[in-house]
Amino acid sequence: MTTLITNATLLPCTPDMPVVEGGWLRIDGETITATGAGLAPQVAGAEVVDAGGGVVMPGMVNPHCHMAMTLFRGLGEDVDDRLYRYVLPMERKFVTPQMVRAGTALAALELIEAGVTTVADMYYFETEVGRVVDKAGIRGVVGQTIADFNPPDHKTIDEGFALTEELVAEFAGHSRVTASIAPHAPYSTDIAVMNLVARWADDHPDVPVQIHLAEMDSEMEWCAKNHNMRPVEVVEKAGLLRKGLICAHCLHINDSEIERMAHAQVCVAHNARSNAKAGRGIAPVEAMRAAGIPVGVATDGPMSGNTLDLFSQFAPVTMFQKLAGHSRKPMPAKEVIRMATIEGAKVLGMDGRVGSLEPGKQADLIRIDMSAPRVQPIYDLYSTLVFASMAVDVQDVMVAGQWLMRGREVKTLERRKVMRDALQVAAEFKAEMARIDAAG
Amino acid sequence: MTTLITNATLLPCTPDMPVVEGGWLRIDGETITATGAGLAPQVAGAEVVDAGGGVVMPGMVNPHCHMAMTLFRGLGEDVDDRLYRYVLPMERKFVTPQMVRAGTALAALELIEAGVTTVADMYYFETEVGRVVDKAGIRGVVGQTIADFNPPDHKTIDEGFALTEELVAEFAGHSRVTASIAPHAPYSTDIAVMNLVARWADDHPDVPVQIHLAEMDSEMEWCAKNHNMRPVEVVEKAGLLRKGLICAHCLHINDSEIERMAHAQVCVAHNARSNAKAGRGIAPVEAMRAAGIPVGVATDGPMSGNTLDLFSQFAPVTMFQKLAGHSRKPMPAKEVIRMATIEGAKVLGMDGRVGSLEPGKQADLIRIDMSAPRVQPIYDLYSTLVFASMAVDVQDVMVAGQWLMRGREVKTLERRKVMRDALQVAAEFKAEMARIDAAG
Repeated sequence: MTTLITNATLLPCTPDMPVVEGGWLRIDGETITATGAGLAPQVAGAEVVDAGGGVVMPGMVNPHCHMAMTLFRGLGEDVDDRLYRYVLPMERKFVTPQMVRAGTALAALELIEAGVTTVADMYYFETEVGRVVDKAGIRGVVGQTIADFNPPDHKTIDEGFALTEELVAEFAGHSRVTASIAPHAPYSTDIAVMNLVARWADDHPDVPVQIHLAEMDSEMEWCAKNHNMRPVEVVEKAGLLRKGLICAHCLHINDSEIERMAHAQVCVAHNARSNAKAGRGIAPVEAMRAAGIPVGVATDGPMSGNTLDLFSQFAPVTMFQKLAGHSRKPMPAKEVIRMATIEGAKVLGMDGRVGSLEPGKQADLIRIDMSAPRVQPIYDLYSTLVFASMAVDVQDVMVAGQWLMRGREVKTLERRKVMRDALQVAAEFKAEMARIDAAG
Repeated sequence: MTTLITNATLLPCTPDMPVVEGGWLRIDGETITATGAGLAPQVAGAEVVDAGGGVVMPGMVNPHCHMAMTLFRGLGEDVDDRLYRYVLPMERKFVTPQMVRAGTALAALELIEAGVTTVADMYYFETEVGRVVDKAGIRGVVGQTIADFNPPDHKTIDEGFALTEELVAEFAGHSRVTASIAPHAPYSTDIAVMNLVARWADDHPDVPVQIHLAEMDSEMEWCAKNHNMRPVEVVEKAGLLRKGLICAHCLHINDSEIERMAHAQVCVAHNARSNAKAGRGIAPVEAMRAAGIPVGVATDGPMSGNTLDLFSQFAPVTMFQKLAGHSRKPMPAKEVIRMATIEGAKVLGMDGRVGSLEPGKQADLIRIDMSAPRVQPIYDLYSTLVFASMAVDVQDVMVAGQWLMRGREVKTLERRKVMRDALQVAAEFKAEMARIDAAG
């Protein structure tokens, strides 16, 4: 099966970040086999898709998410103690395989509609997440959380590892779903547990490890109090600061830690809106990238960041660096798009397969309409994408040569059922909130 | 002519900021005559509009804009010296009544599509702006720029005043277009000119005065060097720090200045994205509002801020205050919506007529669809509007009882013609940029 996409403004997201006007792209099966500009080749029997001059670029990569938490989107916003008042008790009570399926499906719908084709997830009952990701047709690095705060799906660390083993077994050899292990954070897994994870990871070199790192003031205090160390040092001491570690947040890191992280070849998922909404600060993205650390544009879970699309992160990502640098110069728009595509793929160790439009790579791509008055005129396409385009401008989404969305109609998920299931859980949440509020 | 809007989730934006489920609203002519919840009254011959449970709220107010600069949107983004290399020479060469008409029409289209019903503008050939605003059906405070840097439409300050007099004469008594005078900024109008404006304003008490204030480091330096003062002091010395002065930006103001501004009863248009994109800093919005200064959510011109919709400003507005306060608490979502509606109206001196949905007020309102997966579930409507909704969710827009948009179709402007005129100017701009680049 061959698909030819013609008449596109191609952003291949190769190292020079070119803009190819009048571009075309050939896909055979799940693979990109050729790209070019000008007259497209004739291929008998090929499906020919005229992009109508729209932008065709790699599907975006969201390297840090808690998909099922769509069901908590905006819950208790602006309530002082919402975490302890609502969220933690409700997670303990309501997080079941069914709830995880419902929330993850809602997230998958949102991701596809926003042109995100690869997502890294950390949550509970992660095998369920993998199944929904599989059905949705996107790619996922699905991370089973390991934590010692009595999370919803494991009472002991051993149970956590058992869940991880099940996850690994179920998705062994899967082309789009990659099992992952996710020790929660230095303060919630401590050195002993992280060390167990490190040894487990030694035996499972193909399983990516994800962790929250250097995110919160309270984490800094915990690490100082318990170990007289900083979070990065705690992870290092546990033997986990290693090649490919996917570190979410990394707000509180200094120059020496950046150097050690770069040397250890860890990767970073940057969550601009989530970090700012909590008033936590601005991650030193410019410094990390200058040191050679790949940094991706992530959303965090929708409890913290509300949305899962990368477009709504773009302006904050660059604005925060400009604010921190007190200059217009940091992080040009082009670099933001690089982070959202090929660099995000690198964060997940997938840059050999996705993240750019090149022959030999998987055909993960999106088409974006650029005709709205609010994005016109266009002088600098990267500027337009970063500062004016919106997730709803994404028209078509393809993963591994399969269309997941055409003309904004998602083909792999039943929108009505996904919404019904999600709203049913939300109704239970609302009733529980009312009970909590009535109890004072 | 009576219109009844039923089955709405009403956000009247009255002082308590209630959310009225199952709300209805009655409009007679251009005025809201009644609102309520539950069964709507029966009115023979009325147009009945079922809001389908969607949000109905006041049309938004954008209190600082340079509408015609849509034509410069993203031009030279990330080029170091874009202002001197491209923009200023091109403004001098290309800013004509025709260009202003084309750019302003594109902006009006974008504003209506985003649910902004009132805008304050500062640019050149402002009579043209007023005419486009009139035709578009929105409300505008159209400010003729006065500056002594040889701007495109006046060689002398006297000529600037003459243009302003023409503007005032043309829109005397107009119900939606309010003529305004806009001394550019302390560094570009200096004390003598600002003093002339102050005396002119004494004679024209109904003409709002707009100014850029305390925006840039270079402005601080200019005021220090030329007057050994800070910008607010310079404006004060010129006699212009007065009731109703619409001050855009106000980044570089200290506590004592905030107190004097509050005492003088000036108002502030806050431009979060524009200020951050330039790396300029974070305006002390919380402190200004605490002192009683009305602050509105503004976009600045699309050269600086790229878009004219307030939704894309909402998250930055609150995130910046949370970052500055190193806490999740500053500026709850509800306050952001207040700023975008009734408080923005107050900034423009129009809160007696628009900005909330109350009997006796002008029927300026919008309906927002809340059915997209990316905004669901909804636990806190203000959170959803601030952090998840997008401008494209606005379905219907009414100003003074007239529908300007229904089902996203703008009725007052010919979309195709507006786009064609704008892209024609943009083509000239691109050719000029190529000439400039070729010249080195």
